[in-house]
Amino acid sequence: MKRIDILLFDDFTALDAFGPAEVLGGLEDCALSFVSLAGGEVGNHLGLRVMTEKLDPEEPRFILLVPGGFGTRPGSRDPELLGLIREAAASSEYLLSVCTGSALLAAAGLLEGLRATSNKTAFEWASGCGPAFWDRQARWVRDGRVFSSAGVSAGIDMALGFVSEIYGGEKAESIARRIEYHRNPDADRDIF
Amino acid sequence: MKRIDILLFDDFTALDAFGPAEVLGGLEDCALSFVSLAGGEVGNHLGLRVMTEKLDPEEPRFILLVPGGFGTRPGSRDPELLGLIREAAASSEYLLSVCTGSALLAAAGLLEGLRATSNKTAFEWASGCGPAFWDRQARWVRDGRVFSSAGVSAGIDMALGFVSEIYGGEKAESIARRIEYHRNPDADRDIF
Repeated sequence: MKRIDILLFDDFTALDAFGPAEVLGGLEDCALSFVSLAGGEVGNHLGLRVMTEKLDPEEPRFILLVPGGFGTRPGSRDPELLGLIREAAASSEYLLSVCTGSALLAAAGLLEGLRATSNKTAFEWASGCGPAFWDRQARWVRDGRVFSSAGVSAGIDMALGFVSEIYGGEKAESIARRIEYHRNPDADRDIF
Repeated sequence: MKRIDILLFDDFTALDAFGPAEVLGGLEDCALSFVSLAGGEVGNHLGLRVMTEKLDPEEPRFILLVPGGFGTRPGSRDPELLGLIREAAASSEYLLSVCTGSALLAAAGLLEGLRATSNKTAFEWASGCGPAFWDRQARWVRDGRVFSSAGVSAGIDMALGFVSEIYGGEKAESIARRIEYHRNPDADRDIF
């Protein structure tokens, strides 16, 4: 099974993580893990408490997915977290970020020379976290092995876009149908 | 603060619970709790492990939200769980179900005489769990204090529909914008 690590941290946005998780959970050749810097319980402002494994940055994985949320503000200034993300990125085939998760990738220096997007409301802040060719219009952006999405729900469209590009459009349609999701299939078009 | 209890059980569908949770988390006068029959850790097929409180059925609450998932199959035959839902429903102002969560409400006898919907793929099974006027076409249905949605992602539209009816359209729009969600605002229209 191919490993998909979903990186959680205190004050992550639930839908950023669990929207794409629901989509990627439809890939029969993959196994998801919910991971964090230290392992153990991670919480957020909804009162949600999720148990996580400690992320082993050296373990090869198919996807590292980084959600956004208020926790990316302290996260973007946390050298330990950024170092872990950088190290884990080196052993990941694909990097996916949702919402302000791209601020963490940028702060870790992982978006340099690449096109990327982020949450529209927090765009100024996120795009100031590190170098990238920031695209404010996109629903999501793929540049090479890095997929980044706009805010929260856009992560679902990005994850379906990822499935479509890597596994084919039929697989993406079948997952969208299973979760009864009305797709926004155009990466470049967003109403926000 | 008004209490919103999100009832989790083993093999619940993550997006059924956390889509609406993200929406309802935008209501400043409400506090969310993730609860279960016994309290403690609840898991699902994605490898997700969530900590829950034990649901106190007698505590008055604003909303009881019941997600769907594979766990509704054993759940629909579990007299202890159904009794708890029935008891908790009596002290809830509103009942919301997502996907096959409506099978649990039906099996608990809570949909008798009411219009309701459920997941399209599991419709035959869900609608066989108990009496209701089952609507196969809807994205979501409101009948009095009970809101039920179609599969998985439809819960997000239903939660926004709930906010729109109870708090007004502007509040629903503001939450949809914050989570950058392209709404399906018509309860009666679904492509699935």
